[in-house]
Amino acid sequence: MNKSAQPVHAKILAFDVFGTVVDWHSSIVREVQALRPAVDGKAFALAWRAGYRPAMARVMSGELGWTRIDDLHRLILDSILPQFGLDDFSEADRQHLNTAWHRLDPWPDVVAGLTRLKSRYTICTLSNGNIGLLTNMAKRAGLPWDCVLSAEVFHAYKPDPATYLGVAKVFDLAPAQVMLVAAHQDDLAAARECGLQTAYIERPAEFGAARPKDVSPDPANTWHAKDFLALADQLDC
Amino acid sequence: MNKSAQPVHAKILAFDVFGTVVDWHSSIVREVQALRPAVDGKAFALAWRAGYRPAMARVMSGELGWTRIDDLHRLILDSILPQFGLDDFSEADRQHLNTAWHRLDPWPDVVAGLTRLKSRYTICTLSNGNIGLLTNMAKRAGLPWDCVLSAEVFHAYKPDPATYLGVAKVFDLAPAQVMLVAAHQDDLAAARECGLQTAYIERPAEFGAARPKDVSPDPANTWHAKDFLALADQLDC
Repeated sequence: MNKSAQPVHAKILAFDVFGTVVDWHSSIVREVQALRPAVDGKAFALAWRAGYRPAMARVMSGELGWTRIDDLHRLILDSILPQFGLDDFSEADRQHLNTAWHRLDPWPDVVAGLTRLKSRYTICTLSNGNIGLLTNMAKRAGLPWDCVLSAEVFHAYKPDPATYLGVAKVFDLAPAQVMLVAAHQDDLAAARECGLQTAYIERPAEFGAARPKDVSPDPANTWHAKDFLALADQLDC
Repeated sequence: MNKSAQPVHAKILAFDVFGTVVDWHSSIVREVQALRPAVDGKAFALAWRAGYRPAMARVMSGELGWTRIDDLHRLILDSILPQFGLDDFSEADRQHLNTAWHRLDPWPDVVAGLTRLKSRYTICTLSNGNIGLLTNMAKRAGLPWDCVLSAEVFHAYKPDPATYLGVAKVFDLAPAQVMLVAAHQDDLAAARECGLQTAYIERPAEFGAARPKDVSPDPANTWHAKDFLALADQLDC
């Protein structure tokens, strides 16, 4: 699905990461159950992720100074452990579990899809994850980024316009020469407001196979693809 | 050459770029002579590069606000063109020539050496070049960075400690777990002051084959290698 007339050829594909590139839900389930097999891993993963937006909002409101996602993840982790009967976790266990976000597995189409897309485009992350997290994740999972861009570079979290426009500035391009690729309509809508092109990727199992997500197309997006391989087909890569 | 007792195993190799990874001198000669075959390309390359440190010093002193290398390169370019009888260069020629720094060629050992080093280490840039410049260069030359770090991320130019310590912070490591790889003793000395390990790379032709550079070892460095392949040998990659 694509608009018949593409006004500008995008040069940069900037990818949202959590949910779009990697399957955070099943990876967090795996990691917490490796430490405590009896815990309700699915509920734990959802609770941890649910703290993510409110934590970033505390940074963007100025209540917290600039704080990286690694540190926000740790604040949320410490706050939810008691609800799951895990408040006896040692400091070492907490540190190890907190870096589970560096060890998220990519969706099955991702490495092959990115490799094809990289042949015609510069591919970079545009994630609220910090640079170290994204680099460690890429190294473990074999994600072939040309460049790791992060909220940490811009000192602003998506959906702040400084992030989307920051990608264009880094590459000295017009916003329309950058395309955000994401599995979240709100992220794409904010990018579109800044003049970026957008590609929606269906990730129906983002919150677990038992809780399928609405992946209906929004005609406002430039592209809509089932996965990265389908996007590569559409973009002639 | 290496010290017999390595106190800490480095996890990150951070690379200086201009002169260490890429041969700016002969690449700039090629680019300017492609526009004007009769110009003294070697003198032109040296003059352009000679403006680099003073321009960064104007930023770090506060005389200029934060300014990327692309923009500093342009200021220097405009100032030296008249000396070479090139003040008739069009705006399009100036813009094209200014991005010659995105099109620098790597030394012959670089791609193979980095590929080997990447198998055991996280490899990143630590350059005063801006992120877009470094990413475009890597894409053209096939440099397989895990991550592109730049003065632009830290809003400070080397040898400011914020750059060397910034790499350690990004990866949540102690400074001694980071190694700077560079062909410049002053860059390495500043990194050592911050607690980083250091590897010196010989690039005798950095300023042109006609002006060989002193590449004597300094025993203060952790490693000294002829090129990236020799460094990979020393680091068992």
